[in-house]
Amino acid sequence: MATIITGKNTIKEAITVGRKIFELYVQPGTNDEILELAKTHNIPVKELQKQEINNLLPKGHQGIGASVQDYAYLSLEDALAQPKKHRLYLMLDGVEDPHNLGAMLRSCDAFNVDGVIIPKNRSVQLNATVAKVSTGAIEHVNVIQVVNLSQTIRKLKENGFWIVGTDMDTPQTIHEMDVEADLCIIIGNEGRGLSRLVRDNCDYIVKVPMSGHINSLNASVSCALVLYEVYRRKGE
Amino acid sequence: MATIITGKNTIKEAITVGRKIFELYVQPGTNDEILELAKTHNIPVKELQKQEINNLLPKGHQGIGASVQDYAYLSLEDALAQPKKHRLYLMLDGVEDPHNLGAMLRSCDAFNVDGVIIPKNRSVQLNATVAKVSTGAIEHVNVIQVVNLSQTIRKLKENGFWIVGTDMDTPQTIHEMDVEADLCIIIGNEGRGLSRLVRDNCDYIVKVPMSGHINSLNASVSCALVLYEVYRRKGE
Repeated sequence: MATIITGKNTIKEAITVGRKIFELYVQPGTNDEILELAKTHNIPVKELQKQEINNLLPKGHQGIGASVQDYAYLSLEDALAQPKKHRLYLMLDGVEDPHNLGAMLRSCDAFNVDGVIIPKNRSVQLNATVAKVSTGAIEHVNVIQVVNLSQTIRKLKENGFWIVGTDMDTPQTIHEMDVEADLCIIIGNEGRGLSRLVRDNCDYIVKVPMSGHINSLNASVSCALVLYEVYRRKGE
Repeated sequence: MATIITGKNTIKEAITVGRKIFELYVQPGTNDEILELAKTHNIPVKELQKQEINNLLPKGHQGIGASVQDYAYLSLEDALAQPKKHRLYLMLDGVEDPHNLGAMLRSCDAFNVDGVIIPKNRSVQLNATVAKVSTGAIEHVNVIQVVNLSQTIRKLKENGFWIVGTDMDTPQTIHEMDVEADLCIIIGNEGRGLSRLVRDNCDYIVKVPMSGHINSLNASVSCALVLYEVYRRKGE
């Protein structure tokens, strides 16, 4: 199956890493650099006038689109088979906003996250918006789709992972995490936070220390602060 | 002038802090808690059926909207007149996405930022989308609108501020900032980064250390990582 993606960086990265691209759509006079790249990769190009490209592509397309092979998921088994010391996984417990997932994928690429686990239901999936917002990071992050988060947590624990939930309602801060271990950080839904069952299955819960009146952060911001804390303290 | 805002948290916070609310729009059977709050504040309420409220309000309204007094800006002079040791300002050099500004306002509230400076032109302004995404943080953060960023930087320097730009193209990291000082952190445009003139006027430039392939983060994520670093090291 194909997905139509847009955006200069996203498409450039897709070509560079060798994603299968069925056709490139471009508005003449724009995106010369990507056209050159497409030529060297023998990718079919269709020139479309402004009006046509506006009809075909969603807003914010930057004059370029591509029909590409769908983004694929890794299985948990395959992900766990990749050996590494002190693995860092991110689990999303009901994140809904594709902008958040896109921004999180950028942070995962930046801070050496080994896999992002998302449930098959009640969660945003990999799509064109996520790809665009990730500015190409989607090509570099392992995304693992699972059916059941509780079972996944059990399997991770069997594999030696510590399961660390994030929430404001806890005394422990991100600075108290033991980062010299296999870690799975869990970020909850944008409005409701962690689901009860997932929370109960965590080894411990941490918060980002903060002051202020609102006492919560954007989900992708929280996520980045926790991931960066692990990255910084591991000294990677 | 009035702005129509939506979202439970945004409206609850607006009522709580005493923002002038001309009228509340609510879908019967939803948002009972806010209706109670509105009653105690003598706010006129208009009940609208699902279809009517969908026509009136933008998507994602959560069954509630309010016509409120426009969000106001502070002048730089008034902001600087508020005495405080080691002030922390954030300057946005061409940030365009209201979702980014909304998320940044949440981080500013959380990490004790004393003022957010945005230019009058070529920048996102305070609006209903920013208010919604900020989940009420917009009510607690001083936003300063200025005409010219270079002149503003000069005035801040005269007032003892250190001007710290953020960019990937620099050897210095956020860990090398001197946080025991009046600081103004600058975040650039989502695609282009800092403008040339603003960059040239910075005292120094810092980056968030990272690995990976994409080598950049979402603007509101970068912003939060820098602000949190200052907050953490000040021990506030």
